[in-house]
Amino acid sequence: MLIHVVNPNTSRSFTDKIDHAARAVASPGTQISATQPVMGPVSIEGYYDEAYAIPGMLARIREAEALGADAHVIACFDDTGLDAARQLARAPVIGIGEAAYHVASLVAGKFAVVTTLALAIPVMEHNLVRYGLATRCAKVRAAGIPVLALEDPASGGVERISAEIEAAKRDDHAEAIVLGCAGMADLAADLSAKHGLPVIDGVAAAVTLAESLVRLGVRTSKLGGYAPPPPKPYVGIFAPFAVGGGAAGDGA
Amino acid sequence: MLIHVVNPNTSRSFTDKIDHAARAVASPGTQISATQPVMGPVSIEGYYDEAYAIPGMLARIREAEALGADAHVIACFDDTGLDAARQLARAPVIGIGEAAYHVASLVAGKFAVVTTLALAIPVMEHNLVRYGLATRCAKVRAAGIPVLALEDPASGGVERISAEIEAAKRDDHAEAIVLGCAGMADLAADLSAKHGLPVIDGVAAAVTLAESLVRLGVRTSKLGGYAPPPPKPYVGIFAPFAVGGGAAGDGA
Amino acid sequence: MLIHVVNPNTSRSFTDKIDHAARAVASPGTQISATQPVMGPVSIEGYYDEAYAIPGMLARIREAEALGADAHVIACFDDTGLDAARQLARAPVIGIGEAAYHVASLVAGKFAVVTTLALAIPVMEHNLVRYGLATRCAKVRAAGIPVLALEDPASGGVERISAEIEAAKRDDHAEAIVLGCAGMADLAADLSAKHGLPVIDGVAAAVTLAESLVRLGVRTSKLGGYAPPPPKPYVGIFAPFAVGGGAAGDGA
Amino acid sequence: MLIHVVNPNTSRSFTDKIDHAARAVASPGTQISATQPVMGPVSIEGYYDEAYAIPGMLARIREAEALGADAHVIACFDDTGLDAARQLARAPVIGIGEAAYHVASLVAGKFAVVTTLALAIPVMEHNLVRYGLATRCAKVRAAGIPVLALEDPASGGVERISAEIEAAKRDDHAEAIVLGCAGMADLAADLSAKHGLPVIDGVAAAVTLAESLVRLGVRTSKLGGYAPPPPKPYVGIFAPFAVGGGAAGDGA
Amino acid sequence: MLIHVVNPNTSRSFTDKIDHAARAVASPGTQISATQPVMGPVSIEGYYDEAYAIPGMLARIREAEALGADAHVIACFDDTGLDAARQLARAPVIGIGEAAYHVASLVAGKFAVVTTLALAIPVMEHNLVRYGLATRCAKVRAAGIPVLALEDPASGGVERISAEIEAAKRDDHAEAIVLGCAGMADLAADLSAKHGLPVIDGVAAAVTLAESLVRLGVRTSKLGGYAPPPPKPYVGIFAPFAVGGGAAGDGA
Amino acid sequence: MLIHVVNPNTSRSFTDKIDHAARAVASPGTQISATQPVMGPVSIEGYYDEAYAIPGMLARIREAEALGADAHVIACFDDTGLDAARQLARAPVIGIGEAAYHVASLVAGKFAVVTTLALAIPVMEHNLVRYGLATRCAKVRAAGIPVLALEDPASGGVERISAEIEAAKRDDHAEAIVLGCAGMADLAADLSAKHGLPVIDGVAAAVTLAESLVRLGVRTSKLGGYAPPPPKPYVGIFAPFAVGGGAAGDGA
Repeated sequence: MLIHVVNPNTSRSFTDKIDHAARAVASPGTQISATQPVMGPVSIEGYYDEAYAIPGMLARIREAEALGADAHVIACFDDTGLDAARQLARAPVIGIGEAAYHVASLVAGKFAVVTTLALAIPVMEHNLVRYGLATRCAKVRAAGIPVLALEDPASGGVERISAEIEAAKRDDHAEAIVLGCAGMADLAADLSAKHGLPVIDGVAAAVTLAESLVRLGVRTSKLGGYAPPPPKPYVGIFAPFAVGGGAAGDGA
Repeated sequence: MLIHVVNPNTSRSFTDKIDHAARAVASPGTQISATQPVMGPVSIEGYYDEAYAIPGMLARIREAEALGADAHVIACFDDTGLDAARQLARAPVIGIGEAAYHVASLVAGKFAVVTTLALAIPVMEHNLVRYGLATRCAKVRAAGIPVLALEDPASGGVERISAEIEAAKRDDHAEAIVLGCAGMADLAADLSAKHGLPVIDGVAAAVTLAESLVRLGVRTSKLGGYAPPPPKPYVGIFAPFAVGGGAAGDGA
Repeated sequence: MLIHVVNPNTSRSFTDKIDHAARAVASPGTQISATQPVMGPVSIEGYYDEAYAIPGMLARIREAEALGADAHVIACFDDTGLDAARQLARAPVIGIGEAAYHVASLVAGKFAVVTTLALAIPVMEHNLVRYGLATRCAKVRAAGIPVLALEDPASGGVERISAEIEAAKRDDHAEAIVLGCAGMADLAADLSAKHGLPVIDGVAAAVTLAESLVRLGVRTSKLGGYAPPPPKPYVGIFAPFAVGGGAAGDGA
Repeated sequence: MLIHVVNPNTSRSFTDKIDHAARAVASPGTQISATQPVMGPVSIEGYYDEAYAIPGMLARIREAEALGADAHVIACFDDTGLDAARQLARAPVIGIGEAAYHVASLVAGKFAVVTTLALAIPVMEHNLVRYGLATRCAKVRAAGIPVLALEDPASGGVERISAEIEAAKRDDHAEAIVLGCAGMADLAADLSAKHGLPVIDGVAAAVTLAESLVRLGVRTSKLGGYAPPPPKPYVGIFAPFAVGGGAAGDGA
Repeated sequence: MLIHVVNPNTSRSFTDKIDHAARAVASPGTQISATQPVMGPVSIEGYYDEAYAIPGMLARIREAEALGADAHVIACFDDTGLDAARQLARAPVIGIGEAAYHVASLVAGKFAVVTTLALAIPVMEHNLVRYGLATRCAKVRAAGIPVLALEDPASGGVERISAEIEAAKRDDHAEAIVLGCAGMADLAADLSAKHGLPVIDGVAAAVTLAESLVRLGVRTSKLGGYAPPPPKPYVGIFAPFAVGGGAAGDGA
Repeated sequence: MLIHVVNPNTSRSFTDKIDHAARAVASPGTQISATQPVMGPVSIEGYYDEAYAIPGMLARIREAEALGADAHVIACFDDTGLDAARQLARAPVIGIGEAAYHVASLVAGKFAVVTTLALAIPVMEHNLVRYGLATRCAKVRAAGIPVLALEDPASGGVERISAEIEAAKRDDHAEAIVLGCAGMADLAADLSAKHGLPVIDGVAAAVTLAESLVRLGVRTSKLGGYAPPPPKPYVGIFAPFAVGGGAAGDGA
């Protein structure tokens, strides 16, 4: 089974960390292919960065489809471009945000999310509402650390995340914690041991759920909003990305 | 990895069908142990049957815990006794209803459930509300067939289920179907092919999700409603089921 | 009019307290019959205890039906087994939890619940969501006292409940309080006087609502999930509890 | 016990019908006092009529308070002026709409409302959302008959109501029916027998719930939106209605 | 374009303040006509005052219709009588509460409301739920100042409002503030500058939205609850307010 | 006042139609600047097209900001890229979808949306949930016509839209209609006259709401998810789009 894990930002160190987290949890027969786009932001913090991350990420998904990927994992907690990817791909696609929320819902009545910057809170809240799982989430909390600072031990990031977990237990009655950034993948086990509750990393959660879908033989339904994009020309530098289209003349 | 799949009713033929469905989807390294209670109803149709199915089912879960089960699957679509089982067990517990709803949410915007009797609709609607996934479910439909009639080809059960799937596509804009009874486990593949949309069987879904949780090393949180039951005596024939208690005298 | 009040736990002192609270509020022409199961836990704290309380409680409801009860009250704040009881009984059935929520909704915009242990919070939250009254409940609070400690004045239980009521007024803007345990039935009047807001005891609330339903001649609808259980055999020690069934052979 | 039942419209025949329905269900020791305003519309069909019904109705509630009423029932299905009445009165106040919704919630999973004109549907839908019971209501249906036509057997009103009940059972899976107009009070028993499900009349429901509140000694909380109106002058013809105020000069 | 702004209370100073706020934001071609009722309370604090404010306010709306008003603005934050006014008027009607909520929703993910007295909180919460925008409102806060005290600089009202805004930013994560009283219209600009977030005054918001509707040529739909009131007699002092009716005899 | 209206697709004919609709409703002092991206799909039908429309659209918004635009209107009914645009722009940004929903909410209790293809339904449903206005929308309907076919009278598109409006009135009790595609801007007036209810075109609605915000001096809050994107390098062909960043080396 080949699972394509795409890091939607363009930072190699992130891709490596994600690759490592994915391989650590994959079943014996599962092959992990970790990629990153050739264009876009070095980290994703908010809607604007997302907008420029998605086109390159979709290109990676199309390539992985051609290479026979059995499932795709989008390794950004915003579930960046998840809907578009589902329209494009034949294989199932899972975002690490939704994966973590679903797993947390299976082991706790209520969970809290601890993410990086306050800027990211509304994105996750919107996703939770759409997925239906907002009622299961006690609160989305931000530790106040930039995404890339997670890579720097001197940033005090781990301590701040730990403090938010403590607050989530005490003030939100959270029974489980979802770590709201792919860059926190390596912290889950230690934080779970320290705080005595399940701490979910989305990358690992998504890889195992992707394996589930493949084993079940279940793919994205093509009946509603995930029907394939109607073929049409794309203009300008995006012409190559059109599905069944091709370049159009000036303004079509 | 040992996954305990408990059929909460006392019909051997049901347990066998569930056992078969579970083995068919389990990973190479996964061992399936299928059980059924020694006491209780031969099928579960509504709240009253549930009430008498749960005590015997919990006994099976306690035994399987002692035998080292890594996860438990409750193989009734009502997710019969799921909360109590989570309080009791150290290993994670998954109901086939919730498993199917979560899997359907990963591959479709909206799904419909097709179950056996109208009597079962409110049970599932209540569960969907609690899980948060009611907003993802377009409708719970009943095919109007008793549970045990599913075993009889002459009952016309498959045709009625198929008709409800057709109606769910046309009238509810359902993009995926959840088969709402453990006894329909063997129908999913054919119905998916026939109707051109994902058709989810809960037994298979729950087994793969159980594998996910075990691989992730995630167990039920013991911080909220799933904290272990406070020890206390149980009176009368239920005395042996008390946790850390023991029999009490008359009326405690 | 005969109202059957069943205490689902097996503690005689609880049954007596409930009996007393019920008689205190009953109309002149109303006869109260208070019972408790012959089997099950001595107190109900969480889902697991509930599972072993319900079978014995349903037996009491069946007996009371035979004796001509006009209505049944289930005197546990979890509304333990309410759905199953409604399926079984011809007469209307009211849980003391739901009774208290409905009464509070008639005299306040928002109410808070003060219960015993944190363990019980999710059970009540789930019920509130199902009943539709979650939007009327500002918060479910736990005073951190075991159910049976309510009987011991030295436990400081009343002071802790009082402190939670104060917090509910100040922090949750609660306009009324629901006492979330049958064992608090004797505290309502004093706490209402002390805190200057309505304090609702579920036992009293349920008895008066039961009288309402009987006087209205309204019984549980048998059209949906409360349709009578389809007859079928029950296996083992539960065989006597089957409705219209009878014992089956080994594993049916 | 003295229960004041106020018909907010100015039609004597309506008041008589309501008085009759109230007396029919009242307990032996309960005295019913039925009133109607001296000013306002002869029937209430929509928000505009409501606006001119409330001032006169509140005057009746104030008078009944002075006469020692133990509870007030507002006998219009819109629960006309219920909030203002709760602010004004010391005794509890119940609207027949809310009473019927609460009673229906105690005997059915889902109910439907059958009212007179389509114009009234949004009013009831708004109330249901506020009360929290919208999730329990399958649908609000209008029979397409003016309020006063209910008094004319030749209007075919009963047949149209009956047809809507049939549709509610078939299409909405309603398990109980709420009759959405005080003028239908005399139809409940026959319709219940004919259709085989609980049919709730709000006047009777409200009277029995009012008795419940009085027996429980529970009054409207004065902590939130129902705190007494701050004293202030009212200008013009409404000066006599000011609470603790008195007439003011030109435009205050 | 003629926009009729009606102050539903009878305080001239309030009407003047509202008139000023409306003129300040109106487009060059827009004419503002500010009125107040000839009868009713000098300020509106809670449901009871509302009940006596509406009849006089509706009379002003009817007069303004006759004078050719293109739109009506109801200048009380409770949106007092908005539904009845929509039934009565041919021109569109906008409440300053709803106007502010809609405008806040266009410039912020979540907003908070700061109003005068705690008594007013439930009224606004109910409106927010009905409008659908409750999910956009982080919290309704009260500054604890009577409406008319806003006119007295020595009351410390502005400081208290400012403190609540600070709390809303810090504790509710509010991104914008809605000032919940027409009497605060003159504070918006200063508070916005001081706190660095949008502060919305409902009078100004409603006037610009009214201009939008007029320019779009969109009027209130007459298909649902806003259909014209069916003609009927009104009794007593309200006889002149009947629509297409006329006075009736004794009690109709 | 300069309002920038950006058509997110690359079809000149669409931009012209939008430009025309915007100018038709703009106030005398308002200048309309209609643009379209230099890259991207010729029409937007679903999530995948959206992903490739947003980057070019954001570039147009940045240019318009530099030219002093007072407000931006995104003229696609999906509100394509609205969140990212709000993060980027200093001036307020309004999507034509949200504009139409807000305007419809001001003139009707419930509205229905009639859009082009079924594929677009989930996008709009998601937006409605996020905006909070899902409870105001009776149904999103698709007329089954591709976006560009709207330009071809022989396509029968108008007839199909008209049929869906009829169904929305009859089956959904819709009181107003929102036309769910910028390409339907020229149909609103005729359809409103024909069907006797408000028919809202989003382009016109958004232009007037943009004028409202500018006149009110209200801009997007920068406190939550719309805080400016943290500066960072973008890689590859997207490097020029980075905010405060600049090109990065290989994979950063």
